Amino acid sequence: MKALVYHGPGDKAWEETPDPVILDDTDAIVRVEATTICGTDLHILKGDVPAVTDGRVLGHEAIGTVTHIGDACRRVAVGDRVLVSCISSCGTCRYCRDGHAGQCIGGGGWILGNTIDGTQAELVRVPFADLSTYPIPDGAADEDVLMLADILPTGFEVGVLNGRVQPGDVVAVVGAGPIGLSAIIGSQLYSPATVIAIDLTDSRLEAAKTCGADITVNNGREDPLEIIRELTDGLGADVAIEAVGIPATFELAATLIRPGGHVANIGVHGKPATLHLEDLWSRNVTITTGLVDAYSTPTLMRLITNGDLDAAQLVTHHFELADIEHAYDVFQNAAETGALKVVLTA
Amino acid sequence: MKALVYHGPGDKAWEETPDPVILDDTDAIVRVEATTICGTDLHILKGDVPAVTDGRVLGHEAIGTVTHIGDACRRVAVGDRVLVSCISSCGTCRYCRDGHAGQCIGGGGWILGNTIDGTQAELVRVPFADLSTYPIPDGAADEDVLMLADILPTGFEVGVLNGRVQPGDVVAVVGAGPIGLSAIIGSQLYSPATVIAIDLTDSRLEAAKTCGADITVNNGREDPLEIIRELTDGLGADVAIEAVGIPATFELAATLIRPGGHVANIGVHGKPATLHLEDLWSRNVTITTGLVDAYSTPTLMRLITNGDLDAAQLVTHHFELADIEHAYDVFQNAAETGALKVVLTA
Amino acid sequence: MKALVYHGPGDKAWEETPDPVILDDTDAIVRVEATTICGTDLHILKGDVPAVTDGRVLGHEAIGTVTHIGDACRRVAVGDRVLVSCISSCGTCRYCRDGHAGQCIGGGGWILGNTIDGTQAELVRVPFADLSTYPIPDGAADEDVLMLADILPTGFEVGVLNGRVQPGDVVAVVGAGPIGLSAIIGSQLYSPATVIAIDLTDSRLEAAKTCGADITVNNGREDPLEIIRELTDGLGADVAIEAVGIPATFELAATLIRPGGHVANIGVHGKPATLHLEDLWSRNVTITTGLVDAYSTPTLMRLITNGDLDAAQLVTHHFELADIEHAYDVFQNAAETGALKVVLTA
Amino acid sequence: MKALVYHGPGDKAWEETPDPVILDDTDAIVRVEATTICGTDLHILKGDVPAVTDGRVLGHEAIGTVTHIGDACRRVAVGDRVLVSCISSCGTCRYCRDGHAGQCIGGGGWILGNTIDGTQAELVRVPFADLSTYPIPDGAADEDVLMLADILPTGFEVGVLNGRVQPGDVVAVVGAGPIGLSAIIGSQLYSPATVIAIDLTDSRLEAAKTCGADITVNNGREDPLEIIRELTDGLGADVAIEAVGIPATFELAATLIRPGGHVANIGVHGKPATLHLEDLWSRNVTITTGLVDAYSTPTLMRLITNGDLDAAQLVTHHFELADIEHAYDVFQNAAETGALKVVLTA
Repeated sequence: MKALVYHGPGDKAWEETPDPVILDDTDAIVRVEATTICGTDLHILKGDVPAVTDGRVLGHEAIGTVTHIGDACRRVAVGDRVLVSCISSCGTCRYCRDGHAGQCIGGGGWILGNTIDGTQAELVRVPFADLSTYPIPDGAADEDVLMLADILPTGFEVGVLNGRVQPGDVVAVVGAGPIGLSAIIGSQLYSPATVIAIDLTDSRLEAAKTCGADITVNNGREDPLEIIRELTDGLGADVAIEAVGIPATFELAATLIRPGGHVANIGVHGKPATLHLEDLWSRNVTITTGLVDAYSTPTLMRLITNGDLDAAQLVTHHFELADIEHAYDVFQNAAETGALKVVLTA
Repeated sequence: MKALVYHGPGDKAWEETPDPVILDDTDAIVRVEATTICGTDLHILKGDVPAVTDGRVLGHEAIGTVTHIGDACRRVAVGDRVLVSCISSCGTCRYCRDGHAGQCIGGGGWILGNTIDGTQAELVRVPFADLSTYPIPDGAADEDVLMLADILPTGFEVGVLNGRVQPGDVVAVVGAGPIGLSAIIGSQLYSPATVIAIDLTDSRLEAAKTCGADITVNNGREDPLEIIRELTDGLGADVAIEAVGIPATFELAATLIRPGGHVANIGVHGKPATLHLEDLWSRNVTITTGLVDAYSTPTLMRLITNGDLDAAQLVTHHFELADIEHAYDVFQNAAETGALKVVLTA
Repeated sequence: MKALVYHGPGDKAWEETPDPVILDDTDAIVRVEATTICGTDLHILKGDVPAVTDGRVLGHEAIGTVTHIGDACRRVAVGDRVLVSCISSCGTCRYCRDGHAGQCIGGGGWILGNTIDGTQAELVRVPFADLSTYPIPDGAADEDVLMLADILPTGFEVGVLNGRVQPGDVVAVVGAGPIGLSAIIGSQLYSPATVIAIDLTDSRLEAAKTCGADITVNNGREDPLEIIRELTDGLGADVAIEAVGIPATFELAATLIRPGGHVANIGVHGKPATLHLEDLWSRNVTITTGLVDAYSTPTLMRLITNGDLDAAQLVTHHFELADIEHAYDVFQNAAETGALKVVLTA
Repeated sequence: MKALVYHGPGDKAWEETPDPVILDDTDAIVRVEATTICGTDLHILKGDVPAVTDGRVLGHEAIGTVTHIGDACRRVAVGDRVLVSCISSCGTCRYCRDGHAGQCIGGGGWILGNTIDGTQAELVRVPFADLSTYPIPDGAADEDVLMLADILPTGFEVGVLNGRVQPGDVVAVVGAGPIGLSAIIGSQLYSPATVIAIDLTDSRLEAAKTCGADITVNNGREDPLEIIRELTDGLGADVAIEAVGIPATFELAATLIRPGGHVANIGVHGKPATLHLEDLWSRNVTITTGLVDAYSTPTLMRLITNGDLDAAQLVTHHFELADIEHAYDVFQNAAETGALKVVLTA
């Protein structure tokens, strides 16, 4: 088959590579019909994720059709059209049994395109297939479903649910890239009163408006703290969602919340941040971090199938799978191209 | 009356000062029968709390008898023996109505011995007396009750409840001073499997054992991370409670928890700490801070009255109220005197 | 002043009665600008509520302007335009301090138009005015606000929140009268996948559609259990909200839920129901009952002010306050008149 | 092998029957070292559980050693000493993934000794063995572990956790048979202020005292409502746990709770009960039912291993496995024999 293979920092190629085969009786092989590129893939290409070694097929998001299954598979069958989640679940470790497959200690977690070959390929081997794929219901649009592989449950679980967004809340989202937008989309399921998107790029703030932000703040020009205080009788936001992954945005998020509020970090961080405990120690704040667990995937699937959630609005560009190297360029140069999520179809 | 009056950094005196009077119709005047000294009082004396100005009577913990009440008092009556909580509650702001009086924005919160005169005195004016005092039930020992003014609900709410200690948990408490010990005592109400006390001082670790710690670790000599990993199949503690208030202990606490665990900060911090988001971003951790709200005071009162909670074990020294300057010396030199809580009786 | 006075079962009159005066220093007097009629008022008129005695002014919902306040009032001031909630909160009992003012044991709870004179009058005395009234914000429409006196927080707290409606849920609402409709409106704040309204009257089912029900079932003609099972792979609804108050509807609601689901009873019941524990004992069901506490009133106020919640859609008829006896007729004959909520303005 | 085989109502025999074999690749065969008898087994013998048909081996609780495993087993290995839980978990259905294996719709749930052959035998086939057995840790006593097969997690999950017992609570347990006692033992993990055991048999109330009840009430002679009201300022218990399974005891439990309290039903009911909604509708009560899910088994295992929970105190009698018919007689005649749990060892 053809696949996008990593060959060390800065080096990748769409090339011939052996077809995957069933290695474990809980595996399935899925013929990829659509995949996408994640910000994490760019990190990998910079060499930031040492677990990814030369020869690895990249990608952790896909939809496709099952072509082979291992003997122990019970739920997936050959011919099923499925969503391949970025999170694999062993189903038997303490974390998986508790719904926290992102922390799986039984061989799952985020492994696709990381410690094993991934989804930016014509075929992919999916371990623990019964628990790591989801049947695509009639009536669910492929492009919406593809957004459930990672970005939408990540924004929802790690941003909205960890942040405990509630009806009537004032929610500040720091960063209006794809993951911030997915948090904005997801937060509306809980009917906040006001969602404030904060970013340095006006085009992203425009996208945030489209996705449902009530107020946008370009923090290159405006002071988000002042704006939020004015809106909240000086108290601060109920929830602040960090969706960038650098110290400055985390520290900003921690500044914006009211006493008793929640800071939900989604961003992937490479460096420590400063936690201003000299201010925060007495303010009853809750700070959370997290990798997606994908426990919300069935719920989100029901909502998109029902037409209650528009996930595909995150998609800005379409390519053929074989054109993936070009798609990476477009995705990488988001500032110029305006790319949010790109969809690659086989 | 006589009272301990603050006269600027390092300067305090037990001296004659005017008797307090009812200023607001929700006030009560309480004749102090016992009070104690808090670590925060030492901070004030160092000049660390600028809100406290020359002439302020110190102290925010007491038990006593009501001598006068304002016209709007309904629950407290002259002659009642009451606990005076460190937290005053206006009862009408959004925080008080939600049980979070520590964040009161209606004139309450921590005000005694801070923005108004406090309890280290023969008499004290208690604002919002209906909501800021608690009747002492028959059968509750005075010394147990006095510990409910601040230290026990602080350890319980900010440490144990914010940390969500559950039966079977492994709980690490960083710091075995009075507040750490109160968290150790409080955590046992939820039957953790193992409580690990961590401190640099062996005598405090001895006290931790007496208060119920299962394992003690002197982190001057031993590596708590290694010990906890061994105990938890390499995962880490379910809950880590920070009970010191310096960057190093917070950072240690954040290192000790397992994926999905909770770090509950109780310590009063004067400086920022480093938050290692490069490690923590993907680990599903929850970090909380907080000032006590005192919502647990009635529950803890029931438990001490019932004999289910021994709060008085925190008391190491007794003095007459007039001897309070000496008591401060003993409390301040805890390393030599072994002082935890000192009780001053009128 | 003029007021609607109860004179025993079936007997009421719009008549001259003495103006209310401040009796307690936490009282306020409010000049009523708009009030409405509740199903409970009809129960009272049947003689079903023995606490209501001859001479009582009826009504427990209003908006108006404060004309007098007692000396202990801090938050309300003469001239304030306020919502008068059906629930009065003493603010100091264990239930009020915990946010459950509906269960107040300090003299509050549901007292207006019940144990003390109510709001269907030109003036009303409101006890514990600081905690039992809410300022009407700029931009909130009077008719929306009036719906926050009782019906909307009741549907939201006792139906939606007790029932723990979550995004993606299937929610069955048994009864599409005003209270069922308010539960339908409120449930949408949590983005259920499907709301099913069940009633015997087609016109009410029409109203349910307008209020946001996805599916309507006339259970005189159709079997709701069959419809819900078909929709849920045979499992049942996630949440069933009872909004009628008779044994048959409660028992229906208990039949409709899936294992692990919630039955939230809002209906006012006069008779016991049968609980089929022989079926339910093993099904992990949660059944809740409740009187509104009004803790959600500020949240709902923010949402209507923001335009995120349309409460006024429940209003079908308007009258002058002096015409209240006619309004009762219209409200009582809802089957013919189609009345949901009627608004009376001074 | 020898096993206790059901032959229709009233008819059972310890007889030769074929050894179980691996039928599915997730099965394990376990050589039973100890088993026990459950009240449910007596129901089956009365013919109350129609799913149990002629030829079925009874029993759903055991400890033993794994002798064979299917190809898909990953966690259990031949030679492992394991607890066999009464609940089998498929691990892939929506209930199992959510921790609610008691409601498994993937072929698990309560199946042992019910729809498939059970544990009162020399050998037992355990489906979904990775998820339905638990390794016995060093230091855990067999008899304690055996109590984790059903009775202790049932009392804990369905009684204590569903009832949300909290520190300081007043907890009423209606019924002091084995399941009521297990709820009494389990509730102490949350440090209630007062546990009240209610039963008609003095010897059971004695056992309740031993298990930790603070107050015992023989409701043949005393009025539990009066006693609880006196203890709670007239309010009622925070939690009432039903541990019998007849209408009268459920109705009693519902009477005992305070406004805002919880009724947790554990009892297996054969008939409907009356729910007094005419009293309860306004009282903010929560009523729960449930079958055990066994999600607490690892936690309870840790606590017994640590010596923090004495489960074996429920064991009153010991027999050899071959003597099981006699053991049934003793267990059945509990009134005379005082039997609580009987242990049968191979």
